Amino acid sequence: MNYKIVSNYLGRILLLEAITMTPSLIMAIFADGLMPTLAFASSMLAAAAVGSVLLFCIRPKNRSIYSREGCVIVALSWITISLFGALPMTLSGAIPSYIDAVFETVSGFTTTGATIIADIESLPMSVLYWRSFTHWLGGMGVLVFILAIVPEGHGSGMPFQILRAESPTPTAGKLAPKLHLTARILYSIYFGLTVIQIIILVIGGMPLFDAVTASFSTAGTGGFSIKNDSFASYNPFCQTTLAVFMLLFGVNFNIYFLILIGEFRRVFKNSELRTYLSIVAVSVAAVTVNVLKMFNSAGEALHHAFFQVVSIITTTGGTTLDYEPWPEFSHGVLLLLMVVGACAGSTGGGVKISRLVIMWKAFRTEIKKLLHPHTVSSIEMDGEVIERSTLSRCGVFFFVYMILVALSTVLLALDGCDIETNFSAVLACINNVGPGFGLVGPALTYNCFSAGGKILLAFDMLLGRLGLFPLILLFVPSTWSKRK
Amino acid sequence: MNYKIVSNYLGRILLLEAITMTPSLIMAIFADGLMPTLAFASSMLAAAAVGSVLLFCIRPKNRSIYSREGCVIVALSWITISLFGALPMTLSGAIPSYIDAVFETVSGFTTTGATIIADIESLPMSVLYWRSFTHWLGGMGVLVFILAIVPEGHGSGMPFQILRAESPTPTAGKLAPKLHLTARILYSIYFGLTVIQIIILVIGGMPLFDAVTASFSTAGTGGFSIKNDSFASYNPFCQTTLAVFMLLFGVNFNIYFLILIGEFRRVFKNSELRTYLSIVAVSVAAVTVNVLKMFNSAGEALHHAFFQVVSIITTTGGTTLDYEPWPEFSHGVLLLLMVVGACAGSTGGGVKISRLVIMWKAFRTEIKKLLHPHTVSSIEMDGEVIERSTLSRCGVFFFVYMILVALSTVLLALDGCDIETNFSAVLACINNVGPGFGLVGPALTYNCFSAGGKILLAFDMLLGRLGLFPLILLFVPSTWSKRK
Repeated sequence: MNYKIVSNYLGRILLLEAITMTPSLIMAIFADGLMPTLAFASSMLAAAAVGSVLLFCIRPKNRSIYSREGCVIVALSWITISLFGALPMTLSGAIPSYIDAVFETVSGFTTTGATIIADIESLPMSVLYWRSFTHWLGGMGVLVFILAIVPEGHGSGMPFQILRAESPTPTAGKLAPKLHLTARILYSIYFGLTVIQIIILVIGGMPLFDAVTASFSTAGTGGFSIKNDSFASYNPFCQTTLAVFMLLFGVNFNIYFLILIGEFRRVFKNSELRTYLSIVAVSVAAVTVNVLKMFNSAGEALHHAFFQVVSIITTTGGTTLDYEPWPEFSHGVLLLLMVVGACAGSTGGGVKISRLVIMWKAFRTEIKKLLHPHTVSSIEMDGEVIERSTLSRCGVFFFVYMILVALSTVLLALDGCDIETNFSAVLACINNVGPGFGLVGPALTYNCFSAGGKILLAFDMLLGRLGLFPLILLFVPSTWSKRK
Repeated sequence: MNYKIVSNYLGRILLLEAITMTPSLIMAIFADGLMPTLAFASSMLAAAAVGSVLLFCIRPKNRSIYSREGCVIVALSWITISLFGALPMTLSGAIPSYIDAVFETVSGFTTTGATIIADIESLPMSVLYWRSFTHWLGGMGVLVFILAIVPEGHGSGMPFQILRAESPTPTAGKLAPKLHLTARILYSIYFGLTVIQIIILVIGGMPLFDAVTASFSTAGTGGFSIKNDSFASYNPFCQTTLAVFMLLFGVNFNIYFLILIGEFRRVFKNSELRTYLSIVAVSVAAVTVNVLKMFNSAGEALHHAFFQVVSIITTTGGTTLDYEPWPEFSHGVLLLLMVVGACAGSTGGGVKISRLVIMWKAFRTEIKKLLHPHTVSSIEMDGEVIERSTLSRCGVFFFVYMILVALSTVLLALDGCDIETNFSAVLACINNVGPGFGLVGPALTYNCFSAGGKILLAFDMLLGRLGLFPLILLFVPSTWSKRK
């Protein structure tokens, strides 16, 4: 393990975090008064000081980063940024318990959106902004951001491994020959779509601050809102805009790149996109029919069904109403969509559509083998053969995912909540959705759990956001051994 | 598809079923009176008549059985035997609804043990015996039974494919060079252990009829009891005997064969056996500590924890008490054990320990690949290299299993029960356990579901018992096409 290069990246991350707190500091000075101002100022100082020590005092001789350094850098970066990001929340008095603040910050960066705050509207503006901004930064990835802003030809030390570990989906491809360019293209599309969304929301009648924070929240598919009732108080036009943009941010960003370079045929043929839109359409139809009786008109039922389905499948988790009284069938569909998740290479979480498509094709191949045992068949997706190693990693992913969900649910049961609460809390956290069912339903918070339960769930969020493996690697002794 | 050979086997299965109903007919004549006697007599006649037509009137020219014929024979045999096995239950008036009777019979043959009968003790003796006997026959497999009793050198038409499809675990090996011998060895061990168990139970003070039916139930790891309170009213010695034998029947039968031929070293080194016993030990310890406060002594807590843990992991499902009031943590452990299941090649259900061991090894290999990307590594189990095809089938199994559990839970939600009931009912059925939690807890029955829900759950039981694929194949159009 190359400890010095790890320290180098942790330093960069902390300096970045200090810089990104600047808008909050300015808001605190002009709108919130002394405590929030001091909280952000001291948090920025702390992050900058520790970051500088890690970056400038420890100089790596060997700048090479292998797969394991990539994973460790990503895992530790996310833990570090959350630990420091929680500081202003506690120091400002907004969230008195530091563990609660860490839960909230992990929930922010991982774009989960699970909250422990009952009265969100009482928070200072600067904290509300910071809380929503963590979604935006975490959505596309903090290290991808660093990669995007590093000057050309200067960051040869940050290789593919990190990009791969931070967006660890089977199709994490390169859009451009240079990684910096790929990162810049991704962040440009991300930034552009966010700005368009803000403009449409403001035109639709939403106040600017609401439009900015709501756009951060939906762009990162996070789900934090600055209102106690999530997105329920906005007008139907704004709600629909939010839902459409959630749907857009759940699409693989490669698709937008393909659109930009005019390759429309590949867009239409993309099997992940087609599966994604089909699942959304079928789910919206099923839920609409199931909840029809609870609304005044079919249009209203469709409106709320569309919002909730899109919000859950993109793992955003924002709501226009409390879906807890909906029939069990709709609950089941939503629980299922939590696991399905969005497309690979989007800001959404979950198992990801592409993994499901790959495993579905593997399943069909198994059936074919049963019918014709001597046929040799390979699995293709969008014209490319899927390698055996991708396939077995996909299978292992499902297995590890099942084990982690099961163990987390059992451990969480020690807190004494009912099985529906525990199971949906684990699914909502590991898939980065946010609200679950029962005691963690959309109208409630995660305060029903003890500190230990919250730490476990925060860990699940990180596991889910980073694709399980980078975080697991931290617990493998040989990760830390000297390279032979 | 070779339809004629399929009909040939369905005929044999029905004749076998007619014969195995004989003890029940005798009991009905001497103990139960007219209705049960007529019920069994007419059911036997129906099975024998249809069986004879299928076996003797349709003569296959081509006796070759390929993989797909094997799967279809197994799937249709299990459906047929359940449809006819349900007849005496309805005709005798014991279970007035035929769909309920089919649910109960599928639950019997698949050794699930889920019941829709509230007052079991009111059933006629002949029906009670038949109900328990379905467990014993289903435990080791109905086609394996036919294979075992076919005269030497005469059944060359029944190949490895059927044995494989009926006990479709990754390690389904051959114990002897000839398949008949393998089947005979398996059934001899099975029969021998069952007889020993009956003798010990009778010595322990259990009435003979109770001992026989309880032994059928635990040997098949089914769980049906002839008492309303499952196994709660027997003395602690008999309860412990039942638990120990459940544990024994959850072991891969290859282990007993190894013991018989004196290969003790391979027994001690067997990784599946070691994992199985370790999981049981850890679970018993965890549950005992968790329920300690609910009992008068630690010994009593251990007694009940041991029984329940063994009963659930072997997917038997019999109980010594209602575990519904136990803490949520214990519920979680038991739910987890339902999925884990027993060893491959045992009479137990679930995902099976060997699949977990294989996937765990695949997971470790993935971790190794992340740390050392250029290492080539193969996966071994008990000294044998696991082929890539086994590995990918295992991964696909987990994926299909997850999908089926998820879809079944969502569909079952249309009946309106709560999520805990639906989810645990699906897990209890697909893993062939029996009782679940909530409305399908050990003190309750599956009558909370509609006819549609019961059919869905019966289908899940068959899916679980037959390892998913044979039953799925029935719904693949090309299964039924002509062989080129």
